[in-house]
Amino acid sequence: MTEQELRKLLEEVRGGQTTLDRALAHLKKLPFEDLGFAKIDHHRPLRQGFPEVIYARGKTPEQVAKIARGMLGNGSSHNILITRADRTIFRAVRRAARTAKFFPLSGAILIRRDRAIRGKGLILVVSAGTSDIPVAEEAAVTAEAMGNRVETIYDVGVAGLHRLLEHRRRLTEARVVICVAGMEGALASVVGGLVAAPVIAVPTSTGYGAGTGGVAALLAMLNSCAANVSVVNIDNGFGAGCVASAINRA
Amino acid sequence: MTEQELRKLLEEVRGGQTTLDRALAHLKKLPFEDLGFAKIDHHRPLRQGFPEVIYARGKTPEQVAKIARGMLGNGSSHNILITRADRTIFRAVRRAARTAKFFPLSGAILIRRDRAIRGKGLILVVSAGTSDIPVAEEAAVTAEAMGNRVETIYDVGVAGLHRLLEHRRRLTEARVVICVAGMEGALASVVGGLVAAPVIAVPTSTGYGAGTGGVAALLAMLNSCAANVSVVNIDNGFGAGCVASAINRA
Amino acid sequence: MTEQELRKLLEEVRGGQTTLDRALAHLKKLPFEDLGFAKIDHHRPLRQGFPEVIYARGKTPEQVAKIARGMLGNGSSHNILITRADRTIFRAVRRAARTAKFFPLSGAILIRRDRAIRGKGLILVVSAGTSDIPVAEEAAVTAEAMGNRVETIYDVGVAGLHRLLEHRRRLTEARVVICVAGMEGALASVVGGLVAAPVIAVPTSTGYGAGTGGVAALLAMLNSCAANVSVVNIDNGFGAGCVASAINRA
Amino acid sequence: MTEQELRKLLEEVRGGQTTLDRALAHLKKLPFEDLGFAKIDHHRPLRQGFPEVIYARGKTPEQVAKIARGMLGNGSSHNILITRADRTIFRAVRRAARTAKFFPLSGAILIRRDRAIRGKGLILVVSAGTSDIPVAEEAAVTAEAMGNRVETIYDVGVAGLHRLLEHRRRLTEARVVICVAGMEGALASVVGGLVAAPVIAVPTSTGYGAGTGGVAALLAMLNSCAANVSVVNIDNGFGAGCVASAINRA
Amino acid sequence: MTEQELRKLLEEVRGGQTTLDRALAHLKKLPFEDLGFAKIDHHRPLRQGFPEVIYARGKTPEQVAKIARGMLGNGSSHNILITRADRTIFRAVRRAARTAKFFPLSGAILIRRDRAIRGKGLILVVSAGTSDIPVAEEAAVTAEAMGNRVETIYDVGVAGLHRLLEHRRRLTEARVVICVAGMEGALASVVGGLVAAPVIAVPTSTGYGAGTGGVAALLAMLNSCAANVSVVNIDNGFGAGCVASAINRA
Amino acid sequence: MTEQELRKLLEEVRGGQTTLDRALAHLKKLPFEDLGFAKIDHHRPLRQGFPEVIYARGKTPEQVAKIARGMLGNGSSHNILITRADRTIFRAVRRAARTAKFFPLSGAILIRRDRAIRGKGLILVVSAGTSDIPVAEEAAVTAEAMGNRVETIYDVGVAGLHRLLEHRRRLTEARVVICVAGMEGALASVVGGLVAAPVIAVPTSTGYGAGTGGVAALLAMLNSCAANVSVVNIDNGFGAGCVASAINRA
Amino acid sequence: MTEQELRKLLEEVRGGQTTLDRALAHLKKLPFEDLGFAKIDHHRPLRQGFPEVIYARGKTPEQVAKIARGMLGNGSSHNILITRADRTIFRAVRRAARTAKFFPLSGAILIRRDRAIRGKGLILVVSAGTSDIPVAEEAAVTAEAMGNRVETIYDVGVAGLHRLLEHRRRLTEARVVICVAGMEGALASVVGGLVAAPVIAVPTSTGYGAGTGGVAALLAMLNSCAANVSVVNIDNGFGAGCVASAINRA
Amino acid sequence: MTEQELRKLLEEVRGGQTTLDRALAHLKKLPFEDLGFAKIDHHRPLRQGFPEVIYARGKTPEQVAKIARGMLGNGSSHNILITRADRTIFRAVRRAARTAKFFPLSGAILIRRDRAIRGKGLILVVSAGTSDIPVAEEAAVTAEAMGNRVETIYDVGVAGLHRLLEHRRRLTEARVVICVAGMEGALASVVGGLVAAPVIAVPTSTGYGAGTGGVAALLAMLNSCAANVSVVNIDNGFGAGCVASAINRA
Repeated sequence: MTEQELRKLLEEVRGGQTTLDRALAHLKKLPFEDLGFAKIDHHRPLRQGFPEVIYARGKTPEQVAKIARGMLGNGSSHNILITRADRTIFRAVRRAARTAKFFPLSGAILIRRDRAIRGKGLILVVSAGTSDIPVAEEAAVTAEAMGNRVETIYDVGVAGLHRLLEHRRRLTEARVVICVAGMEGALASVVGGLVAAPVIAVPTSTGYGAGTGGVAALLAMLNSCAANVSVVNIDNGFGAGCVASAINRA
Repeated sequence: MTEQELRKLLEEVRGGQTTLDRALAHLKKLPFEDLGFAKIDHHRPLRQGFPEVIYARGKTPEQVAKIARGMLGNGSSHNILITRADRTIFRAVRRAARTAKFFPLSGAILIRRDRAIRGKGLILVVSAGTSDIPVAEEAAVTAEAMGNRVETIYDVGVAGLHRLLEHRRRLTEARVVICVAGMEGALASVVGGLVAAPVIAVPTSTGYGAGTGGVAALLAMLNSCAANVSVVNIDNGFGAGCVASAINRA
Repeated sequence: MTEQELRKLLEEVRGGQTTLDRALAHLKKLPFEDLGFAKIDHHRPLRQGFPEVIYARGKTPEQVAKIARGMLGNGSSHNILITRADRTIFRAVRRAARTAKFFPLSGAILIRRDRAIRGKGLILVVSAGTSDIPVAEEAAVTAEAMGNRVETIYDVGVAGLHRLLEHRRRLTEARVVICVAGMEGALASVVGGLVAAPVIAVPTSTGYGAGTGGVAALLAMLNSCAANVSVVNIDNGFGAGCVASAINRA
Repeated sequence: MTEQELRKLLEEVRGGQTTLDRALAHLKKLPFEDLGFAKIDHHRPLRQGFPEVIYARGKTPEQVAKIARGMLGNGSSHNILITRADRTIFRAVRRAARTAKFFPLSGAILIRRDRAIRGKGLILVVSAGTSDIPVAEEAAVTAEAMGNRVETIYDVGVAGLHRLLEHRRRLTEARVVICVAGMEGALASVVGGLVAAPVIAVPTSTGYGAGTGGVAALLAMLNSCAANVSVVNIDNGFGAGCVASAINRA
Repeated sequence: MTEQELRKLLEEVRGGQTTLDRALAHLKKLPFEDLGFAKIDHHRPLRQGFPEVIYARGKTPEQVAKIARGMLGNGSSHNILITRADRTIFRAVRRAARTAKFFPLSGAILIRRDRAIRGKGLILVVSAGTSDIPVAEEAAVTAEAMGNRVETIYDVGVAGLHRLLEHRRRLTEARVVICVAGMEGALASVVGGLVAAPVIAVPTSTGYGAGTGGVAALLAMLNSCAANVSVVNIDNGFGAGCVASAINRA
Repeated sequence: MTEQELRKLLEEVRGGQTTLDRALAHLKKLPFEDLGFAKIDHHRPLRQGFPEVIYARGKTPEQVAKIARGMLGNGSSHNILITRADRTIFRAVRRAARTAKFFPLSGAILIRRDRAIRGKGLILVVSAGTSDIPVAEEAAVTAEAMGNRVETIYDVGVAGLHRLLEHRRRLTEARVVICVAGMEGALASVVGGLVAAPVIAVPTSTGYGAGTGGVAALLAMLNSCAANVSVVNIDNGFGAGCVASAINRA
Repeated sequence: MTEQELRKLLEEVRGGQTTLDRALAHLKKLPFEDLGFAKIDHHRPLRQGFPEVIYARGKTPEQVAKIARGMLGNGSSHNILITRADRTIFRAVRRAARTAKFFPLSGAILIRRDRAIRGKGLILVVSAGTSDIPVAEEAAVTAEAMGNRVETIYDVGVAGLHRLLEHRRRLTEARVVICVAGMEGALASVVGGLVAAPVIAVPTSTGYGAGTGGVAALLAMLNSCAANVSVVNIDNGFGAGCVASAINRA
Repeated sequence: MTEQELRKLLEEVRGGQTTLDRALAHLKKLPFEDLGFAKIDHHRPLRQGFPEVIYARGKTPEQVAKIARGMLGNGSSHNILITRADRTIFRAVRRAARTAKFFPLSGAILIRRDRAIRGKGLILVVSAGTSDIPVAEEAAVTAEAMGNRVETIYDVGVAGLHRLLEHRRRLTEARVVICVAGMEGALASVVGGLVAAPVIAVPTSTGYGAGTGGVAALLAMLNSCAANVSVVNIDNGFGAGCVASAINRA
């Protein structure tokens, strides 16, 4: 309810067009969410550029396809992103949406209906080892699904610094850097020291032994000596893509 | 090797004073850091808007004052930020810099020499309980020292939702939100759900019992169901201010 | 040994039908729990409204069905609750009890023989995400099996506050609220702030990364800034239903 | 703002006693919590029987006394509870409130202005060892401050079962039992098995070695084989008192 | 090298059949373990009453049977104990030893060749829940294999104290008590308080949630308020049986 | 209630001196602790050889001295053991008991009133480094206070094996070995391999870095490859002394 | 930029085809990695004696064989080491390299093309229990693949010290000792005390219970009282082999 | 017992001066440590180049000075190293040894009596931040005390890579590199990738928040993607110096 509407109601009370009881009822029932709050929520996907998202793990191919079909028919034209799927789910989804594209490393499926670029700059996804690529890919696909220009640099671990330093130029051009690394997670600190842009660090659960499951990388990233680094949870490529997109669209 | 020296070498090649082989040998040995890399680093404070920073913990008042004095005399005009100081250190610093300002809750000292606003929007610092204010203040002072417009909303814990919801408007206006909370750290998720901007979550080490020292809040923030939340380490208000500034200046 | 039996024994002593030595032997062997203590135990299901419970995990369908059959034939009319079962176990149980009902999400089976409502008010089960529903269902079925009126509100995570706030009225009407949430477990604090009733928080093992397995949610709930929250173990929907019933029948 | 006040305002608009702009201004400023939501909050202390509470740790005696003085003068007559104080704080508070009472073991201070008993039954606080008494006392004082009848049984650890069993009668009479124990925390399970009432378990940080700081007791209580046990955080006597009071006033 | 062999060597030196240098060479090379140390080791099974033990996990049925056959043919008559086996392994072993007996709950196989009772008193194995029985059985079979009189009391959890108290007499008669419990592990403290004998506590990995895998029970037992309790590792029934036997044969 | 009393009651029923109702009431009320249970407890110190024990940490010298004086005057002649005291407490205690002896490394105070040796063999306390001696001393003094013959071997860490092996003979003569070690706790395994007697391992909180506070030693001892080792909590010399005494007196 | 290109540029400067400014600009932009840094990397395998390594886990047999085939054809003659493979992978690899050798316990495959011994002394691999052999074998094969003389001593756990002490001579002869142990990891300390050479300790994930997954052994080794011990991650036989080789070739 | 003594004994047997029984008795009793084992130990400091070491923490200045005086007078000329001391201890030590030198950052004291360089190459100590210097200094002083040539490079954290890369030459010249870093510990991986020499990584306990106390750096170093890195415990500069020396003297 805007100020204009409120003023109009009071004028009707004064003018007698609205009885006192009706005005009272109106004001009493006034659901607090009508005061802009719930509207914000309905508009949220639009404003935030968030695609419609389905987390596929623990759902059957039929369930995922059914949800996707519902989204396809709901009149909006947001991109539809399905995370943590597999080839069987993809086949079920493709029957509903011929243009669905499968990213086998991350298990992401993207149904692209909106190709507008809304992000202001480049989001660069950098990853350390080959086993970090699935998480890096999930981050990249998520950021793309949200209308960002995304590039990737894979396999630039810190034990072979020169491979990373070759890409110095692109690193400094990016508006946001997503840095994906398992093991000792040192890549985030090195990259953070090379760029002025914000760095979103994603620890991955690669490796074995103490600190396994991504704990070593997570702690390393939280303790990064580079001050422009913030962190999302282990293997959370999706979250990194969302945060990067939120930054890039600010 | 400066540009002048390089130019001189080439002139000698052209003029024949230096043989081609000697020049080649010289250039091959040329330490790469002389070719611009280290310069990037020297320029880093300027480009990143990072102030000169002194971490005071573990230093004597004299040591801190001496470092500050050195910075004051180095010809630059960056702001100087001293973190984790106390009143004794402040007195020593004020003798060197009359305009130094002390923030007693966080122990930050700011010597402001550059008042330009370089950030593009508002950085809003939101905190949950009164014991989170020191960390929130550190984040706010850091972001200010880096040339950002900063506002704060303190004491809006989730157990009294209406206090937070009153500030809905300012929340949605901010370009970056820093969310500081201890205990169960739920504020980050609630704020993340209310805004489209990126949210930097800072767990604090308040409270006692299991999950103490900020671990409960840290884990909660890493597991936030709001997808626009990234996290810095426990009590790391300085880091949050840096990340927020990096985002706001992108 | 009931009071009647004890009286009868003493009458036989008095009347001489039983020799003193036989009575003495009888009383000496009398297991000490027969002297009041064990009665408490035998009567415990009745007084506490606890149903007969079978924890199915690790048991074969035949074993579960056999135990259930034993309970069905023991002369009591308590409800029989089987937790952590699956469809195969259900089929075996249904052969013994036609009226058995299966709850596929939680794997609970309920054989209802006693439909009396003994709880004084409403137990409301609130859960955050779709993956928390299995645990929420176990809590709800348990509380029902114990003779309580139970309602559920699912999928009201804190990142979309308006969904929760829509149910404000029912929340304030409940006599006990069970709050089931994984991830960052923030729901317990938000609900705790909205109601005066006791809130039983149940962390769930949903999600991945640091704090996985429910640890993040557990720590968050233990550190809740709402003072009317107590906690049961991760995924322990059964325990939450029992505690809520104990409160509701007090 | 009550319905009567709202009706009166609208009548004044209709009757012309209030200009439209003044009414508008009034309604616009109307804090959103006045629309039903915040009433819950303002009335919350009353309905929940929550006393006004000051957490003294980290505050100076003067700060605590000043806050207490503010509460004493705000027109309400709620009890005032100060937790984690010491004798110096107590002296400062007593100057403001002659009737303030100090509980030296727990450091609680209670200013009793409302002696009504609002709880429906007995809250029984049971503790295991002498070093658990401070936490038990905090729980007891908190529950009393909230208008409950409270009794205590101290020093009934499970290694000397007979000491606990002597109190069997009182245990079964209580409407809520608060069970405070450090070390291995076994008391909660044993008490839980003896009573039908809900048991609030409070782990304490007594002892040394592995599992120190209350972790062993916390984990034991979360894993209690008695199904009527829920848990609050380590040393959180205040929380236990609040939960018990919420249950007892349901 | 036995005393006889050593004597023979010296006789040959004295008699001149062996040159001094050859004797010297022999003695110099003489592995030091031949001088009594290794004898201790060879005699160790005998003195300690340790049976020959095969840990079957990770071995094929053929491997286990082959090792067992080797032990059967080595001239000794020690009992042979195989732990963590399954029915397939048992079938392979029974072909080698007709008298082998399988304990299906613990997966232990015992080939009894020596039925002498060497322990001085009764070893009593007490366990809390039905899921603790496999570990309790392993402890009992191990102690039996070492020549001890062993009795068991299963399913006497502390939430139903009267079940344990029924066995008071046997508890006080035992020379050693092995106490097996998962969940909150409280049984060790309660039993420790009832007896004067040493109590060997074995935490088990039953249950789910925080403290799972036996950690809650382990910490509880290490923090037992009963001073006659020592602990072996989680699920280590074999170790408990060994320790109890070592005590009982002292 | 003894058998005689029970027989007398039944005779009175038969003879009519006691009405059936009075007998019934008597038998129904019969507190179970009257059946010998509580008596057991009163006799427990005597039977178990446990001294009277005061845990001094957190008590004032006056409090400790007062409790000691109470024990001295209660008519028994048990030894009195005070643990974790300091020299100030000792001075206060000595005023009450001239014969009190102070052990400065462990802070133990022993008032010896009963010098009988009740243990059947030797308890040998072995420790690894000089910083483990305080805990070793506490174990030794405790075992002595309980009437055992105790010897000690200090400073025989495994990095200098020969120092330990020199004491081989005494090791094999001991009826119980208490093994006290911090750092990597390897001593327990090495000693366990050398003796047939039960070994009580006590991890100590010496050292720094990962596994500090005794965790590394605790885990090592729980995972000992020697099967005759059981463990008490970190720094729990008192507990080790109690367990060893319980074994030695069996 | 190769040396040829650099030479050509300088010739153009000398000859006047390129202006000094253009040459200067070119050289200033010259990516540093072209000046030998990356070459260092290409030469790294040669200088370090590192074989070409394939980590097979998570790759299909075809993928591994294809990578191996690529290495075989790249003109170098380094050894090729494949770790964490299985028999199926081995069969695929053998089709590409007839001389490939499979080590079934560790799953290592070695294609030996360079049999030169480059290490200066003996690397001795010592392991504690039979279940530690796979990791020990990985360490041994890795060190061999790097051109070292390697010997192994398996199954010399500290609970049977004499077995280890038999090998005293070889231990003191080794230039580097790799010490592989699970359980309590005590072997590293004992071996460290016997030799003057550096000891590389490898914890293994054998065993069960608390400290499982190698954590107990890792912490023990980090806390070793022998000062010549350093540690690699749990089960990291490959890393131990690399470190030992780096030491042996220094 | 030397070879000569053994030969003499056998000659006496041959010659009849010693009866067979006496010789037998002599040989049987022959303590195993007489066969060279303990000698090894006495010679150990000499062979290993280990200095005499005093760990000062927990000792009084007088105690440290007394031990040092004992070492000074024992006839050897090893260097004497005192770790974790302070200025007061240093003053006490200097009275005994005029040449003692104090290293205030690490608290090390070195009494140099043997200036021979026994190590074969350079030990280079590299550290990341200023707060890592105390641990780095301890490592450097320890290695020097053991007769090694040592150089240091401080303050070369990975967030400013160029500072580290400037020292490329010295890094590749070192025979052993000790790498000291707190925070995220990434320096070890970066240095490990730059050199072929073995790298000893020392995590330090600098910083605050999650992973504090050096845990983040420790885990990062254990998970280093550089294969020539091994690790010592947190803050264990002494251990790193010992390991490096053992490598350098091999």
